[in-house]
Amino acid sequence: MSSTTARKRRAAFRAVKHIENGMVIGLGSGSTALQAIKMIGELLDSGELYDIMGVPTSSQTMFESIKMKIPLTTLDEYPQLDLGLDGADQIDNKLNAIKGGGGALFREKIIAAACKEYILMADNTKITETLGIGQLLPIEVYPFAITPVIKAIEKLGSKVTIRVTNGKLGPVITDNGNYLIDADFGPIQDPWWLEQEIHSVPGVIETGLFLGYANLAYIGGKGSVKRLKPSIDDTLKKK
Amino acid sequence: MSSTTARKRRAAFRAVKHIENGMVIGLGSGSTALQAIKMIGELLDSGELYDIMGVPTSSQTMFESIKMKIPLTTLDEYPQLDLGLDGADQIDNKLNAIKGGGGALFREKIIAAACKEYILMADNTKITETLGIGQLLPIEVYPFAITPVIKAIEKLGSKVTIRVTNGKLGPVITDNGNYLIDADFGPIQDPWWLEQEIHSVPGVIETGLFLGYANLAYIGGKGSVKRLKPSIDDTLKKK
Repeated sequence: MSSTTARKRRAAFRAVKHIENGMVIGLGSGSTALQAIKMIGELLDSGELYDIMGVPTSSQTMFESIKMKIPLTTLDEYPQLDLGLDGADQIDNKLNAIKGGGGALFREKIIAAACKEYILMADNTKITETLGIGQLLPIEVYPFAITPVIKAIEKLGSKVTIRVTNGKLGPVITDNGNYLIDADFGPIQDPWWLEQEIHSVPGVIETGLFLGYANLAYIGGKGSVKRLKPSIDDTLKKK
Repeated sequence: MSSTTARKRRAAFRAVKHIENGMVIGLGSGSTALQAIKMIGELLDSGELYDIMGVPTSSQTMFESIKMKIPLTTLDEYPQLDLGLDGADQIDNKLNAIKGGGGALFREKIIAAACKEYILMADNTKITETLGIGQLLPIEVYPFAITPVIKAIEKLGSKVTIRVTNGKLGPVITDNGNYLIDADFGPIQDPWWLEQEIHSVPGVIETGLFLGYANLAYIGGKGSVKRLKPSIDDTLKKK
């Protein structure tokens, strides 16, 4: 197991401990979230956890959850979820985050907003002083509007590229049928302002700025896990 | 021709006069916009207009434009349009509007934002002192998020219904594959604030609040047309 994978596993392990029997869980996407899903499946299989249901944030997570025999449900049956666990591409000390590297940001954000408690899990390379340093901001865009939206996002001070894939010709198509752009804003000094500006562009579906959702984060390091609360951090005992 | 139809025609007639040869036009949706499209088609047919292209705001408008032989193009070829003509469900004296009764608000707003000049056309029953009086606010919503979004919109102080149709069982599906909800907020005292609040709900695709887009409106009355600029109105000569 690579060092980074071990750090992600450590973070996921701590987050999964928050799950209680009877809970309905938002299941995140990406490599760290998949570690958590695997652990949840194993805990269900061993009988340590039971009576859990999950709402997946992506097709990838849905398939993985079914494989791990986690019963699935929907936001229509459970519009409020007890707990959400997800990864992030970048996290600041307020636990604001950039997400969307895996292209699942729209459903991830819908689920983040639906969770009573929302925990981020990441390895310690994801921590930043300021969001946007060395990190592109993914934005999901309705294809009909892609060209004027790119012009509008560039006007806000970024360089934009349309995300392409090697799985098909041309742009990535998200689980929701849209395009993704990656916007290089450099350091984002006022993410709340930027979020509002981007959302006022018609044709923008959602941005990768996750502001004010997380009430806790576990950050996996070399043999240790940091437990972060918004703007307060304290290193936990090694495990 | 009914009295209301005649008023819509009068408004559309005045708006269409703004079209110049060589322009690329945003083509609105709904009964008043369809009157304008018919007039544009007739002017092209007679040779009074030529070298015009349109970007349609809905499937309905696309089909009608093709029928009227208006050449069509896209926002990818022309991310900025010379002129947009569209109807509205309700218009205040700042020319802020509620749109979406016909379910085309998402593309209509993308196109409104792309137009250098944007003209609303309506009969005089659409004028209001305050948006929201006797008028539901349509909102397009991503189906995955419909239940939590309804809860969030109701928390903002409205009563919400999912729009259904007699053309299929269950909810209307928009040209973009989404649901529509109609939110009864009553009088909307601060539409800019409401717009921002609704847009901050993940799963909302777009709202029917069109704020700051129109620089001109033609309002058809009984034998006359009013020409309105934002917060300034002056009755024009009868025609």
